[in-house]
Amino acid sequence: MKTPLRESTGRIEAFSDGVIAIIITVMVFDLKLLSVPTADNLGAEMLKLLPKAVSYLVSFMMIGVMWVNHHQLFHQVRHGDRRLLWYNLLLLFWMSLIPFGTNLIGANPMLWQASSLYAMVFFMCALAFMLLRGYVVKREMLHDGIQRRAHERVQRKNRITLGIYLGAAALAPVSVFIAFGLFLLVPLMYFMPQPIVHETES
Amino acid sequence: MKTPLRESTGRIEAFSDGVIAIIITVMVFDLKLLSVPTADNLGAEMLKLLPKAVSYLVSFMMIGVMWVNHHQLFHQVRHGDRRLLWYNLLLLFWMSLIPFGTNLIGANPMLWQASSLYAMVFFMCALAFMLLRGYVVKREMLHDGIQRRAHERVQRKNRITLGIYLGAAALAPVSVFIAFGLFLLVPLMYFMPQPIVHETES
Amino acid sequence: MKTPLRESTGRIEAFSDGVIAIIITVMVFDLKLLSVPTADNLGAEMLKLLPKAVSYLVSFMMIGVMWVNHHQLFHQVRHGDRRLLWYNLLLLFWMSLIPFGTNLIGANPMLWQASSLYAMVFFMCALAFMLLRGYVVKREMLHDGIQRRAHERVQRKNRITLGIYLGAAALAPVSVFIAFGLFLLVPLMYFMPQPIVHETES
Amino acid sequence: MKTPLRESTGRIEAFSDGVIAIIITVMVFDLKLLSVPTADNLGAEMLKLLPKAVSYLVSFMMIGVMWVNHHQLFHQVRHGDRRLLWYNLLLLFWMSLIPFGTNLIGANPMLWQASSLYAMVFFMCALAFMLLRGYVVKREMLHDGIQRRAHERVQRKNRITLGIYLGAAALAPVSVFIAFGLFLLVPLMYFMPQPIVHETES
Repeated sequence: MKTPLRESTGRIEAFSDGVIAIIITVMVFDLKLLSVPTADNLGAEMLKLLPKAVSYLVSFMMIGVMWVNHHQLFHQVRHGDRRLLWYNLLLLFWMSLIPFGTNLIGANPMLWQASSLYAMVFFMCALAFMLLRGYVVKREMLHDGIQRRAHERVQRKNRITLGIYLGAAALAPVSVFIAFGLFLLVPLMYFMPQPIVHETES
Repeated sequence: MKTPLRESTGRIEAFSDGVIAIIITVMVFDLKLLSVPTADNLGAEMLKLLPKAVSYLVSFMMIGVMWVNHHQLFHQVRHGDRRLLWYNLLLLFWMSLIPFGTNLIGANPMLWQASSLYAMVFFMCALAFMLLRGYVVKREMLHDGIQRRAHERVQRKNRITLGIYLGAAALAPVSVFIAFGLFLLVPLMYFMPQPIVHETES
Repeated sequence: MKTPLRESTGRIEAFSDGVIAIIITVMVFDLKLLSVPTADNLGAEMLKLLPKAVSYLVSFMMIGVMWVNHHQLFHQVRHGDRRLLWYNLLLLFWMSLIPFGTNLIGANPMLWQASSLYAMVFFMCALAFMLLRGYVVKREMLHDGIQRRAHERVQRKNRITLGIYLGAAALAPVSVFIAFGLFLLVPLMYFMPQPIVHETES
Repeated sequence: MKTPLRESTGRIEAFSDGVIAIIITVMVFDLKLLSVPTADNLGAEMLKLLPKAVSYLVSFMMIGVMWVNHHQLFHQVRHGDRRLLWYNLLLLFWMSLIPFGTNLIGANPMLWQASSLYAMVFFMCALAFMLLRGYVVKREMLHDGIQRRAHERVQRKNRITLGIYLGAAALAPVSVFIAFGLFLLVPLMYFMPQPIVHETES
């Protein structure tokens, strides 16, 4: 009876995929012209949408990074338990607040409070992800072949991410542009080819 | 021919995951500032959002509890039939009304009618869940290893949940704060480590 | 190479589940009070929502019937092809218009045009479903054990459904209440225990 | 360890299905009457919705074509890697902008800028799809039986599609009707029976 009750990560992944798919997609529905577009007002209306479009792009990339990481973590997980479900729900809760932060920063990008809040939402997401990963490793739910060293490198990367978001939240009152720069750093860090990536995958 | 036509819980789970993922996620889209945020109005606007944010958090936790329970119930179900589909749809119907209740209580948390209605929606969800579980057990759709005793304990817990929601609905006119306290009781009851949990899982 | 390229109904089902889950769920987001509820206006506001709530319930049941039928049809399908994808997309297109019809009839239930349009949307859904089923049977995609006779009974039931919706569309100008009665007939027809159901399942 | 970590296209497909299902469905929620329909204003209100309904239909067909192609490409893919996830996310990003373009062209179909933008969104989608397919073929992720020649024919068709969208974007300032004609050409090209289709499938 142990066997059937343990192989449950499939449905955690499916549910998470559903939630993340909704989060990543439905944000785009804030990209809407507020008045009927005409040849006269179109340029001005599109310009007003620009910060919303940029914040959507950045959030899309960040959620993309999270999904890829979530995908790779659960790909390595052999079986789940009830607490894993809750750690995963904690992550999804914070991810579900990303559209709120994206909307806020898109509505008024020069407001430092918007950047701070946006950074804090991602900080909480990264923290929840770290807790999830930590639990998986502590309970030895990973496939046997996954090296502890690879895990440690990923966790170090996660700590850097946490630091970046905390820095963005703290430095936004100084200048929102510092915060913007830091927001771009995280996806860049994941896109750059790195030895860490290869080790995680092999 | 019996075999292929019986193994259908996979798709019930996938469909339910989709519906629950939408319910749990799209609620967050009510968390929106009504006016363009500026340094002057941001504090007041965020304060107005506070009851919405709290009701979102509570609903998220409760839907989380339901999803975990749904996950565990179907994990134990060997095969489905047409009526199981309908019991499941009944549960999803009531769950689909949670965002309405959440929106109502978030818009005016001091209104006792909002708390009563919110409680009644969750009462109907819990009732539908109990009917679903009862049907599964009656038709002996569970894996052989699942003990009847574990089922009885879970059903007892469900009856307590029903009572809590009914109490919240009835006591909200006396004081909405009693209702709020009862709303928090249910997720707490599920988060606390309990012998019941272990028996269900093993 | 034939084998891997043929077993593709899994993803058709997953995609359809996603679309149907969104259709059935997101309708509920029209159930919203238009003004902040207070003790004074709540009763009146809720009363205004009543036709929307009823039309939501009816649409939920009908989409439920369609999902159960879709589930059972694809459960019997051994493999798919490119045209099956398109027949399925045709069905999903018409189903995606159900929220529009629901919203229209909920906004003004006494308007016969709303009832006629609502009926026509369901007529097109039922027609698309019949085409889908007909294609599956013509191409002999069903598992060997599924009897042709069971299929014929289901198609006869589908023709009755088509007739009911056409009748509702035609009689709505006479009285919307005739249309309402006919709308309720379809889910009732599927809920009632029938010999047809048993044969389809066995 | 290679084996479990490689078979990951299932979840890419599930996530993509979720995102595409949301994109294709939620567009319909822009199809809403702006005022309460009455016998007097219904005709005029429905007429105002007509361009929105038509643009929804066209976008639905195009997303349908993309989903069918996505479905068939991934059906042929044996295994994935981290970069494939990102190529796929790039495609989903551009697809997620389709509702924005649809909304814009539906709000004012006579505005050539709307047609140009709509065309550019689909151009980027087709480009992202070509990159994705190119990557899959370059890395030899396809099942052994898939012929390179079939791939080359599909890529040629994709290049024609790219040209059509570029033409629509460029010719929209001359006449939006030329652009409309070109938009219809793409789904038609995919619906027509062609030898290419058969070779891809077999």
